[in-house]
Amino acid sequence: MRMAELSERSGVPTATIKYYLREGLLRPGRRINATQAAYDEEHLRRLRLVRALIQVGRMPVATAREVLVAVEDESLDRHSRIGAAVWSLPETLPATAAGTASGAAPTAETPAPDAAAESAGERATELLVRLGWGFGSAARDESPAYRTLVGAIAALDRSGYPATLEDLLVYGRCADQLGAVDIDMIERYEPGTRQVEAAVAGTVLYEPVLLSLRRLAQAEESNRRFGEGS
Amino acid sequence: MRMAELSERSGVPTATIKYYLREGLLRPGRRINATQAAYDEEHLRRLRLVRALIQVGRMPVATAREVLVAVEDESLDRHSRIGAAVWSLPETLPATAAGTASGAAPTAETPAPDAAAESAGERATELLVRLGWGFGSAARDESPAYRTLVGAIAALDRSGYPATLEDLLVYGRCADQLGAVDIDMIERYEPGTRQVEAAVAGTVLYEPVLLSLRRLAQAEESNRRFGEGS
Repeated sequence: MRMAELSERSGVPTATIKYYLREGLLRPGRRINATQAAYDEEHLRRLRLVRALIQVGRMPVATAREVLVAVEDESLDRHSRIGAAVWSLPETLPATAAGTASGAAPTAETPAPDAAAESAGERATELLVRLGWGFGSAARDESPAYRTLVGAIAALDRSGYPATLEDLLVYGRCADQLGAVDIDMIERYEPGTRQVEAAVAGTVLYEPVLLSLRRLAQAEESNRRFGEGS
Repeated sequence: MRMAELSERSGVPTATIKYYLREGLLRPGRRINATQAAYDEEHLRRLRLVRALIQVGRMPVATAREVLVAVEDESLDRHSRIGAAVWSLPETLPATAAGTASGAAPTAETPAPDAAAESAGERATELLVRLGWGFGSAARDESPAYRTLVGAIAALDRSGYPATLEDLLVYGRCADQLGAVDIDMIERYEPGTRQVEAAVAGTVLYEPVLLSLRRLAQAEESNRRFGEGS
């Protein structure tokens, strides 16, 4: 198909498609003459994914390029390839670990790691043990997700509304169910590039699904307990 | 206590405390002389909350001020007050509803709402019905969380990795459990300002907990199914 049709079928303006081509987010089309190229279904699929990552995932173009390189790295085994792609996804909510600077304050002093951070690390480790998540503790400590978890638990402590291990376990058990269904979803696609793409799309695009459903559930439960009719 | 002690106990630098005071995020202390004021436990508690919202919740100062006004509005009943405070929280992941402009593209053309958006709206409505979430559909349609949900479902469709109603139900049932435990957590505090503060802190600060646990669960499940030992 020509670029006009690619634009029409994807809903992405041609100027944006040209921009993605320049930035290396889409492979060039097959040249048909000096000014035109032809695109195929593969281009359309990739374009839709890129668009979703950038628009909904709010992913910077440079990051999207990095993720797509990992998606296409055929030298890795299946778990590593999915891991590399998902690992390179930005943290959507980069919880500040103990002692990172505030974005809003006029000073950027960095306090030393404190007791809250240490206690948070202990609760996070205990949580993973209780959940039976056995992946190696070396890999875990380097994982951005694990650092985010520890930072968020420490922030709850410091906010004056601390999380107990039991509270965290409710969240962990939910996450366990979600992790299983997420991998079920990617197993619908054949191993290889499409499966890694599905992992990336699912990881990023289900985050707003999850957070918005949680807020709706809170409103529902609050209304049930405290609403006018209760 | 003096400002130096408030700073030490909260871990927030005095320059930042002065900034929050100027911006109206903290009430002024009790004046003791021309250059000094005294602060109490209430100040310390509020300071910790503000700090967590801004640092971990990445909330702009103006938004934090708006949320705190809602927290203190004693004219509302309990459900409305919690609702007003939580409602005014920013969407952490503002999924673009059908047709908002891309941040990365050089053009900002706005395509018309498409079939994906309509089909996403139908699936979202059916999902809430199946979950038995009965709150009024008028309120629901105006809710930012509901709009985020529809936008995210449409984005999944457009990415080429669509969500079925069954997939969404797994997420919805998890959210239902989380909504219940979230309201349990705020019921630990007495009704009034502290309870509304707990709702705000919990809503914002558990989001990174949830997202990071989901990523860890995915890694765990992927390793179990596709890892070297499997």
